[in-house]
Amino acid sequence: MLVDANFCMNLALKEAWKYQGFTYPNPAVGCTIVSQNGELLAVDAHKKAGEAHAEVNALQSAYFKITDDNTILSLKKSIDIHNYLLSHHNNIFHNVILYTTLEPCSHQGKTPSCASLISELGIKEVYVGSYDTNEKAQNGNQILIESGSIIYKEQMLQACDALLSPFKMFLNHRFVFFKWAQRLNGTIDDGIISSSASRKHVHGMRNVCDLLVIGGNTVRADRPTLDARLVNGKAPDILILSREKDFDKTIPLFNVKGREVFIESGFSKLEDYKNIMIEGTSTMYELSKEYVDLYLCYLAPSFAGSKIFDVKNDTFEILNIQKESQDIIMWMKREV
Amino acid sequence: MLVDANFCMNLALKEAWKYQGFTYPNPAVGCTIVSQNGELLAVDAHKKAGEAHAEVNALQSAYFKITDDNTILSLKKSIDIHNYLLSHHNNIFHNVILYTTLEPCSHQGKTPSCASLISELGIKEVYVGSYDTNEKAQNGNQILIESGSIIYKEQMLQACDALLSPFKMFLNHRFVFFKWAQRLNGTIDDGIISSSASRKHVHGMRNVCDLLVIGGNTVRADRPTLDARLVNGKAPDILILSREKDFDKTIPLFNVKGREVFIESGFSKLEDYKNIMIEGTSTMYELSKEYVDLYLCYLAPSFAGSKIFDVKNDTFEILNIQKESQDIIMWMKREV
Repeated sequence: MLVDANFCMNLALKEAWKYQGFTYPNPAVGCTIVSQNGELLAVDAHKKAGEAHAEVNALQSAYFKITDDNTILSLKKSIDIHNYLLSHHNNIFHNVILYTTLEPCSHQGKTPSCASLISELGIKEVYVGSYDTNEKAQNGNQILIESGSIIYKEQMLQACDALLSPFKMFLNHRFVFFKWAQRLNGTIDDGIISSSASRKHVHGMRNVCDLLVIGGNTVRADRPTLDARLVNGKAPDILILSREKDFDKTIPLFNVKGREVFIESGFSKLEDYKNIMIEGTSTMYELSKEYVDLYLCYLAPSFAGSKIFDVKNDTFEILNIQKESQDIIMWMKREV
Repeated sequence: MLVDANFCMNLALKEAWKYQGFTYPNPAVGCTIVSQNGELLAVDAHKKAGEAHAEVNALQSAYFKITDDNTILSLKKSIDIHNYLLSHHNNIFHNVILYTTLEPCSHQGKTPSCASLISELGIKEVYVGSYDTNEKAQNGNQILIESGSIIYKEQMLQACDALLSPFKMFLNHRFVFFKWAQRLNGTIDDGIISSSASRKHVHGMRNVCDLLVIGGNTVRADRPTLDARLVNGKAPDILILSREKDFDKTIPLFNVKGREVFIESGFSKLEDYKNIMIEGTSTMYELSKEYVDLYLCYLAPSFAGSKIFDVKNDTFEILNIQKESQDIIMWMKREV
């Protein structure tokens, strides 16, 4: 297998997908840095809003690889890594090649933009996957071109666009994903389905969602809490989809602090939110189809139970698969 | 993410799993080569018996990366790559680090052993995952140690052992795997399930299997050919598991040249073969359980049909997942 531009961009893509969703309201972005010969120096991703961008994380690792100066590894804040790189780079990055799934940002905020950082470090070759449509951040490519870098645009554009699609959706309007967990034989009953790692992943997703939609029957049957306690996160607001408005208010989800709970018979509440998770059975799957952008399936490699996640006819494009402890996590797009 | 020893070994593992099964009667092996700083030079695998070992494929790529001499890329035969490396290496490999999922072979056949090649190239650091139990090939580590290399043994041993497990099984006795294709909702009816890429993968597996086991009812209902025509490969012998011995001999599988077909009510024929694929429904799954070493599932990301692959209770350990075109290919071990 050739360690070529696609190989390097693919490493960046795989790393970025691990943090898909968690970076909200920022995009999931991955970055690979290689030496002039295509030798790998770093693969990293943006992990959480407020933390360093993918390029900064990757430059931090690459700096350590090249210099063996581990001071930089102790720096956690993006601005500290930026400043350390700018004052210590000593032109070591002149011949590296940087791959990023998204045009480097041009937004000068608390830290200089990634585009400025890359140009000040003198990186001459940058492979860029997709484009930034956020007005504040775009024009990163232009900054790099003006500083004399060569930009190879649209490297694996389609795959980088797929990675970026949730971001573009909540930027333009909102992002809605449907989440379910099932076993290999399609079942959703008979006790806990997913591994504890998968359940922690779900709580991580809830922590960044504004709104969680769930069906009234599920609430009555499961009496869930639907918070993000496994990651010490914040609980999203809840929309219970139900014609019947009367619920037992001792059901735990009604008693989570700082949360609003709406009980409505339709989806109009979605208009007030940007990042929305729908959890549910196949009934909810069918009801919510027209609102859902992507599907997130947690697949446990086991046979048990008897109640199937009973969707009749649909085909998906798999955007990413990843093994999380003993389960498979799949991001998919429904083919229409 | 740190580009460390586990990262490098993991690249080798992922690459090797792509060829799991296809390398029979050789083991699936992967190899990564990095520069002294841990910068990536090559990731490759053994792909097919008779072709170059993983280490030779990776050294070929690494040589090209370092020297830019593309003559070596035109060489296909292992002996030619060996000879070219030995006469042209010019000590460029002294400081590289080599990761291999399996102890390099010590078997001097048509080519010098991989262990000899690595030591003659002067590679000083070698990370080895698992051990070779093939008497002809073992002692590679010893050759390297005697030539002054440092061996880091048992790097990701458990994962390397899992990759190697089919090889150890057919070396010691035989390897039996059960293959099925299903959709996300567990169904196996309603027409073609898998993508053409997955079906080609199945034919590739048939091409290297000695024996294919299938149920009598499936033969009667599907009237299959069960050959390897999609890869221009050889068709395996067939064991039809059936109490009723009378079959319509115009069913295509009976008319494939060079194949033996057995119709028996038990599995005793398995004793005569080394690499055995069982294809079938959940009935065959239950019948064959005690004989099966690993499970190979082709999962299509779609909902359709109604007949479930109806296994009641089992849990698997996923050894590897890989996306093949639009499907997921999973190698799994049943937990007992």
